[in-house]
Amino acid sequence: MKLYFIDNKWTQEAYLPIEERAANFGDGVYEVIITYNKKPFKLDEHINRLFYSAREIELKIPFKKEEIKDIVFEGIKKLNQDSIKIYIQVSRGSYERIHEFPPEDVKPNFFIVFRVFKPIEDEIRYKGVKLFTYPDIRWARCDIKSLNLLPNVLAKQYAKSKGGFEALFIKNGKITEGAVSVFFAFIEGKLITHPLTNEILPSVTRSEVIDIAKELKIEVVERPIFINEIEKIEECFIASTTSEVLPVNSIDNYNFVIGERTLKIYKVFKERVK
Amino acid sequence: MKLYFIDNKWTQEAYLPIEERAANFGDGVYEVIITYNKKPFKLDEHINRLFYSAREIELKIPFKKEEIKDIVFEGIKKLNQDSIKIYIQVSRGSYERIHEFPPEDVKPNFFIVFRVFKPIEDEIRYKGVKLFTYPDIRWARCDIKSLNLLPNVLAKQYAKSKGGFEALFIKNGKITEGAVSVFFAFIEGKLITHPLTNEILPSVTRSEVIDIAKELKIEVVERPIFINEIEKIEECFIASTTSEVLPVNSIDNYNFVIGERTLKIYKVFKERVK
Repeated sequence: MKLYFIDNKWTQEAYLPIEERAANFGDGVYEVIITYNKKPFKLDEHINRLFYSAREIELKIPFKKEEIKDIVFEGIKKLNQDSIKIYIQVSRGSYERIHEFPPEDVKPNFFIVFRVFKPIEDEIRYKGVKLFTYPDIRWARCDIKSLNLLPNVLAKQYAKSKGGFEALFIKNGKITEGAVSVFFAFIEGKLITHPLTNEILPSVTRSEVIDIAKELKIEVVERPIFINEIEKIEECFIASTTSEVLPVNSIDNYNFVIGERTLKIYKVFKERVK
Repeated sequence: MKLYFIDNKWTQEAYLPIEERAANFGDGVYEVIITYNKKPFKLDEHINRLFYSAREIELKIPFKKEEIKDIVFEGIKKLNQDSIKIYIQVSRGSYERIHEFPPEDVKPNFFIVFRVFKPIEDEIRYKGVKLFTYPDIRWARCDIKSLNLLPNVLAKQYAKSKGGFEALFIKNGKITEGAVSVFFAFIEGKLITHPLTNEILPSVTRSEVIDIAKELKIEVVERPIFINEIEKIEECFIASTTSEVLPVNSIDNYNFVIGERTLKIYKVFKERVK
């Protein structure tokens, strides 16, 4: 069940010209938001990040933040489902394929997809998921949530083909983040995660987890974790909008127990989204 | 003036669903070919590279090489123009947005755009063009001609905004290639260009230039050129399918003369495409 918002219309079928800059260059940015109790979670944060990504690639979003929020609320009401995944995409528009920006009068293509969202079941969550490492072959601006996602596609597919749930990017021996998630590990009692640099996405769920950890009096250290520290990891998890807080039971051939602290963070997360 | 081939039909208007993997992930590959005297130049080489790129991202092209060649010849005949640019794009198809590959029955989207092509005028060519350096922020697999081209877009736009023609990517002090071209320089009488690695595209025109240089008894050395060697550069040029052999008159604030050897290579190139 889905609903599209595009060209100021609500529809269930929508198209872009084949000579469109998202399709030819990945020249655009996006966001993914989910609802809890029919309300979008951290909507302001997601929209702010959309504008950040757009600004970094000099793309002008054709709506004001408040207008986008209104469209999101309207779409949630229209689809009228318990849990919805909202995908916002903005590209630099449709024009004869040239690498440089098209003329000023070419308007960006903005659309939103509303789809019924099926959250990960608790049974899977309490068993944990398998991660497989993959070389971090992405570009140097992973802080931008752009449509250039081929490395993420290849990494996620690799993990799936091995029976895993998610890929874990490794750059010069260092864990940066997952293909579609942020990575957290407990080492010597502290919760460690990669600092906010150009090498990772400024994840909305990451901020939330750090905030929860602080509430739980868990010390948080923002520093890279190296893959050769794997034996020091006491428990670990990934986090993202769609996976929330998701315990990890293995990275490649190395196994972990599902930890109490991870489950505690998940529990507080679920309370906060109630 | 343009013509599209898509879904086994010839048309002047064509669309892709908004939930299409080229548009959402840049999950696809492409080629650009031009015609001389109504014949596609180096068609086999371009089609072989298309299949190489596709294989590297585990994408199955829905036509045989001979079938694609037949479509290309048919389109050239239909558009019936002196000079045509042919753009081939293949993506992993249309499906609800998931990072991993879609189910087997989702068919790739394959299309070709035929457009009238206006070659660079000789006046511009003999004056040379300006390049501006830009950090090589691209991913680690630049040997794949993929649709993840946002860094190329940003680099090319930067160069254009400075009054230049092309951006020159610099990685750890090293010139890799242009945003849409390969870079050649004469240093100490030898023609130098970056070796074929994952850091550059295996350019069809690059092979042609090397072959011409050999015919002209010019020694070719495939090694990276560092930007701090700029003062040693006697003459330099870029090359690509659409720019052919194009002399460079400056890189940032550093000027070059348009060299005799570059023009000689261009002359032989033009003889070969006659």
